[in-house]
Parts: sequence; C-alpha cells; structure tokens
Amino acid sequence: MTLTTAIRTEAERTYDLDRAHVFHSWSAQAQISPMTITAAAGSYVWDGDGNRLLDFSSQLVNVNIGHQHPKVVAAIQAQAATLCTIAPQHANAARSEAAHLIAERTPGDLNKIFFTNGGADANEHAVRMARLHTGRYKVLARYRSYHGGTDTAINLTGDPRRWPNDYGNSGVVHFFGPFLYRSHFNATTEAEECERALAHLESVIALEGPSTIAAIVLESVPGTAGIMVPPPGYLMGVRELCDRYGIVLIADEVMAGFGRTGKWFAVDHFDVTPDLLTFAKGVNSGYVPLGGVAISPTIAETFADRPYPGGLTYSGHPLATAAAAAAITVMSEEGIVDNAARVGAEVIGPGLRELATRHPSIGEIRGLGVFWAIELVKDQVTREPLAPYGASSPAMNAVVASCKAQGLLPFANFNRVHVVPPCTVTDEEARAGLAIIDAALDIADAGLA
Amino acid sequence: MTLTTAIRTEAERTYDLDRAHVFHSWSAQAQISPMTITAAAGSYVWDGDGNRLLDFSSQLVNVNIGHQHPKVVAAIQAQAATLCTIAPQHANAARSEAAHLIAERTPGDLNKIFFTNGGADANEHAVRMARLHTGRYKVLARYRSYHGGTDTAINLTGDPRRWPNDYGNSGVVHFFGPFLYRSHFNATTEAEECERALAHLESVIALEGPSTIAAIVLESVPGTAGIMVPPPGYLMGVRELCDRYGIVLIADEVMAGFGRTGKWFAVDHFDVTPDLLTFAKGVNSGYVPLGGVAISPTIAETFADRPYPGGLTYSGHPLATAAAAAAITVMSEEGIVDNAARVGAEVIGPGLRELATRHPSIGEIRGLGVFWAIELVKDQVTREPLAPYGASSPAMNAVVASCKAQGLLPFANFNRVHVVPPCTVTDEEARAGLAIIDAALDIADAGLA
Repeated sequence: MTLTTAIRTEAERTYDLDRAHVFHSWSAQAQISPMTITAAAGSYVWDGDGNRLLDFSSQLVNVNIGHQHPKVVAAIQAQAATLCTIAPQHANAARSEAAHLIAERTPGDLNKIFFTNGGADANEHAVRMARLHTGRYKVLARYRSYHGGTDTAINLTGDPRRWPNDYGNSGVVHFFGPFLYRSHFNATTEAEECERALAHLESVIALEGPSTIAAIVLESVPGTAGIMVPPPGYLMGVRELCDRYGIVLIADEVMAGFGRTGKWFAVDHFDVTPDLLTFAKGVNSGYVPLGGVAISPTIAETFADRPYPGGLTYSGHPLATAAAAAAITVMSEEGIVDNAARVGAEVIGPGLRELATRHPSIGEIRGLGVFWAIELVKDQVTREPLAPYGASSPAMNAVVASCKAQGLLPFANFNRVHVVPPCTVTDEEARAGLAIIDAALDIADAGLA
Repeated sequence: MTLTTAIRTEAERTYDLDRAHVFHSWSAQAQISPMTITAAAGSYVWDGDGNRLLDFSSQLVNVNIGHQHPKVVAAIQAQAATLCTIAPQHANAARSEAAHLIAERTPGDLNKIFFTNGGADANEHAVRMARLHTGRYKVLARYRSYHGGTDTAINLTGDPRRWPNDYGNSGVVHFFGPFLYRSHFNATTEAEECERALAHLESVIALEGPSTIAAIVLESVPGTAGIMVPPPGYLMGVRELCDRYGIVLIADEVMAGFGRTGKWFAVDHFDVTPDLLTFAKGVNSGYVPLGGVAISPTIAETFADRPYPGGLTYSGHPLATAAAAAAITVMSEEGIVDNAARVGAEVIGPGLRELATRHPSIGEIRGLGVFWAIELVKDQVTREPLAPYGASSPAMNAVVASCKAQGLLPFANFNRVHVVPPCTVTDEEARAGLAIIDAALDIADAGLA
C-alpha cells in the first residue's frame, strides 16, 4: 500500500465514522459532506486526498500563529507531561503565567482574568458580571454581530443564527451600528455615519430607559457579520454614552483580538478601554479550547467580598493556559502582530483595492491587519448582494468551489468572502491567495447581468 | 538553592500572580487563598510546600482515570504533534474515533455525538435540541441539582448557585426528586418515596401543561447536590411519563458518567435510555476541556434537513477528542470501570457503613462505585445538618481542615463530605482515605451537644 493509499484509507475511515456518529455545528446533518483534514502546518492544511490548501480562513479565524507552531506544540507537550488538569479553586503555574501575560497586553487597567472554555461562555459571564455590578438586566447588542452559541450568547447575536433561538426573554435589545456601505442612517460619509449611529444608540438608550441597561456589548470590529471597521470616533462615542448612563461597556474581541487587526486588541486602534473585554480564539490560536474575560478593577471590586456566582470545571485549565502563555510569547518574540499589520497594509489591502478596480462583482473591500471582507454584489450601483442576507447563492457557491479547486480554503458568509489568513502569513502566501480569489471572482463577474 | 526551595519559590510566584491576575470561579475574590498545586500522579497531588495529598475529590469529580495517566498524556502529545485544532465543519480522525468509541458505550440507540467544550454548554445544547424537536419551551428540572454555569444551565440548576442568577425567564420549572433521608413527601420507605416522587412529578406536568413541556432534565444520580441514588423504578417511571406526554428525557451524566458509578453510565444501573445524554468530565478525565451530547436517532432526524442552530469553534476539538479516545480505551483495557464498582462494593461502601456505626455526626451514607456522600448532622434523630443548606459552618470547616492536615484533599459541600476518588483508586488508597476521614469526623462528633 502506498503512502497516498494509506492516507486515503485512513481518511475514508474518518469520513465514514464522522457520518455515522458526529453531529455537526450549524448544519442540516443529512446535507453536509465534510472535508477531511489530515494535517496542517503554518498557513496550509492537507485534505484526505493529499491536496494542500492555503488556509485563508484560519479555520474559524482562530489560528493566528498559523498551524502547528513548533514552540506552542512543544509547550503543550511539556505541560501535558507535568499537569494536564487541576480544579479552578487551586492555583497553578500555567494559569498564573497566562493571566499575567494577558493582563500585560489588555488595554488600560483591565488586569484580572476570568478564564472560560471559549468565546460564548466568556460573553455569558461578562453579561452576568455587568448585570450584577449594575443591578440592571437589559443588554444592548448590535445587529450584524456574532457573540456565541449558548443561549444568552446567541440571543446577544445579531445574525440569522439567532432567529431559531428567539424564545424566552433574554433581556437583549438590538441596535444598528455604523456600516456606511449599507447605511441604516442614510449617511454618505464616515463622519455622518458615525454621528448618526451614535445618535441612534443614544435614542435607543433613552427609549429603553437608561436605568434599565446593564451593558452595551459589541465586537470592536464585527467579524463574521462583515468586518465593518468602525469609523473614527464611534467606539469613543459609545464609551462616552456608557460613562454618561452608568452602563458597562463589553468589547467582544473573540475574533478581533490577539493580533488579528495588526494590534494586540482591536480597541487599541481607537484608544478606548472597555470595562470588560472578552477573548478566545487567538489567545492560544485554538490549540486548546480557551476563552476569558478581562475585568476592570471597578467590576472586580464588586466581587471582592461578594461571591461571583459563576464558574466552570475547566476555568484556567493548565493545558489551555500553557498554550496561551506559549502563543503570546511566540507572538511577541516573532513580531507576529506587527506582521499582521504590515501584510495588511502592504500586501492584502493594496491587493484587494486593485482587485476592486477590475471586478464588477466587488461592491466594497474593507478591513485592517489580516482581517478583510470582500463584499460581492450583483450590481455596483444598486449594491444588491450576490447572496441574500442569511443565505448562499449559486454564484457564491461557485466562487467558493473555485477557490477550493485552486487550492485555497476560503471563509465565506452570505455575499462575502473574508480574507483572514494566519497573522504569520508571508507576503508570497498572501499574494498567492489573492491571485486565486482574483480568478474565482471572474466566475462571479461572468454571472452578472 | 535546594530542590524544595526552588519548588517553593516557583509556587510563591504562582500564588502571587494568581492573586494579582486570576479571577476565580464561585468566589469572593478577596476572601480566598488558593492552594498551589505543582504536580499530580495517579490518586495524588502535590502542593507548593511539597506536601503530597490523596485526592479524594478527583478535583471536581473529573479525573476518573487518575492524574497524569501516561497513555493519555502520550496520546495528547502525539495529537499535538499531528494536528492541534481544526474547524468543526471539517472531519478529522481524532473526533471520528472518539465519537465512535462514545457511541459504542452510550445506552440504547444514542449514537450521534455533538461535542461541546464542557458540561454547561452540553446541557444548553441538549435543551435547545429538545425545544426545537418538540416545539415547546418549558423545561422541568430537579431541586438539589447542578447543571452548569452558563445562563440556561445555571437556571436549570437546583442549588443556591442559581439564586443570584434568577433573572429573566429561562422557562425552567423545578420539581422535587426522591431523597428519602430528607423526604419532601413524608415517605418512610424507598418504595413509598419513589411512588410519591413520581406522583409529584406527574402533578407538576399536569399543572404546568403537558403540551408546554419540552424536556425533563435530571442528573441520573445527582452529584454535588448530594449523590442521592434514585430508588429502583424512579428513572423508569420518569421515562414512562416522558413517553406518555411527548417530553424529551435529558440525562445529565456530566459527573455520574464514564465509570464514576461503576458502570459506563449511571442510567445503566436502571435500564433506562434517555433521549439525550450529556457528558463532560470523565469522558477524558478533564485532561483537555470537552463535553458533549449523545443524541437519539429520532432527535437527530429532526436536524437531518433542517439546520441545527447551534455550534462552537471548538466542537470536536482534535486534542480534546484524542484525549477522550485514549481515556476510553485505557478505561476499557485496564478495567477501570470495574475497579470503581469493585472498590465501591468491597472497600468504600463497607468502610463508610462501619464509620456510620461509630460516628454520631454521620446521618447517612449513600452512593455506589466511587461516588459516595457522607451526610453530617448535629443530631441523628432530628437530622439537623452540620451546616445549613447553601452554607458552611465552623464544624464543617474543621472537618475539611483536618482532612487536609492529614494529607487528604476532600470534596465538601454544605453539610456533606463526598468520597469521590479516581476510579483507579486502589484498595489501600481507599482505606487510607477512609482512615483520615474517620479521624476528622472525631472533630465533628466532639462538637455535638
């Protein structure tokens, strides 16, 4: 049996057992045909037929340090040999070091870290802290957002994945954020969009009742919902509204944090310090499940002598936090955050702008660092999307299929293709990926009227 | 610097960074003084002063295979070298193998596995599946129970950790389960308690409206709430009520599953197959964060052509599922489940019964496998607990302190000490642990009137 045959046989077993026994996220189980991934390294993954694919998805925008970074793999192996797990009430070295390294990098005075298993429970706990800190119940969250899959987190979410989960009263009210390309405020400039979005938010606060609102939750830069980089002044304006009305500001940096935007945290672009900052994904590139909440001294003080009524068995798990400490150290030592900023500014941004001049299917490109969206349209004037909100379309499916056929694993959502490679992506890899997308967009162009 | 000095210095740094930066679960942050754990092996852990402690807690009742099992450590290290993480929409070998091994062991026809990060999100997703499957909203859950720390999971919970989280409408209604020692039904025999508890549950169903109830959630054997082994016939009776009224039965086996009770699952003692079974902890002994839901074909079919509206980045995480596959294999090969049954029947059960004959502070002992509770009372006649519901007491604190001083790490909750060592515990270790508890209970006895 050749090596290729052995890989294929193993991949067939993986696929067959998957179809027999694995229930997949966000899927109609009978309608999916998962691609088997057998190996990964740096910016690449390999499928069950031995094909190499350039990972322009970073999986779910989490492998910020690339796949299988040897120093982080070694740190996981070393921690596994030392101490895999310990209960959260005890102290252990890996958890302490990770909390220290994270607190060194979080903005402003956020210096206490509550560890969770992922982004969803990080947002659940942040909302709970805000509710108990303020004594208020209601939470404002953006349309066009994603905050996680557990009940409160999916109710915070402002995308169609929430719709089948809209039962009960989760205390969430949704507002519109700034998104000039599809402005809900009839604005024509970023400054106007910013001003009107803040006025809208203040109206919602006034009409919901400022004294009823515990928190405003938003992704510093919305991720899966479309990478809408907020206009200058918007986040500062939200911060001021929160201060004026005694509302806790929760910045969800699960996808945008830990280097994705070319800074440690996306709020760093805007000189804003939230009261609570939630993270997951990039904290250890998802090598071991981990999330958390960075907490301001004021909110931590609320729970100094009053027990915080929340927790979990794997809070501050040694293996997960050892991976975080190693990932953060590697990101610092190897200049990975700076690389994301540089590749974004020098290769991806200019490259996408050039594509936009040639492809009539491109409505807008936007982003920063290694966090970019290509908004595809049927018509650049009407801006009608290439797939409806909440769905796909034959044209979008064809773009995705073309990318895969050419050796690129894309991240697609509705009418958008996101360019979200690892923060370690090289100039050459970035250019190669853009060339594949260039060719795939010819298909989208050809389908236009 | 001697080795001991080096360990102490490292442990001091761990402690100092913990106090500066780690926000702990379920705690008043200024009132805790966490013990540093530097190493662990088998049934033992070591603290920052180099003291060895016999782990009669299995941490949070999760290290069923003991600490640092070499084969599972090796499997984690091997998987780390191969593929740490991959998105849930792809297939991978570790996830497929774990799903296969779990489905082989779950009761009845539960053969589709949805992987989560832990027990809380497993219960959140199980409730969502039940709601969407039935089209109903309300969920019945037991008083004296624990189901996790996220919002829906903590609302399901029937212990005081829920109280500060009782806002909004989570659709949960609590009922009383069987607990003869503190009967809510004025019963005097197990058979009477069983019959009355089932009649009570049917009354709640009738008065809440059978057509409004999506699911009944219960721990097959309630864990932290007190290890109340259900009387013969109770779970079968609940199963029959669910069948009669079209209600989904969710068995929470997060703590009781994977060998803890001396069988793979606690429901196996009662010949009952739930519609959904949630797990975490023992599935891989918590070596890597992992939980999940085992799903019946009927409920899986609901999501065959209709997307399941839930998911998470780390669903079926390769490192976590590789640890599960290795842990399950080791449990089978080394007879670890049988060991739990045998030690419970031959050493722990008889040993606790003997203690109960000598210690006036013991009100009741109950359990099976390596899952036992010692219910401590001020008075064996009035059954007044040694600490009030939801709190501790100086007497309980003294018992815990005595155990630690003698080299045993206990699991205590309110007026109970639980005997929950790893399923791998040896007869000698079990006897040594019981001897320490024996001595500690002298303190409790001495304080009685």
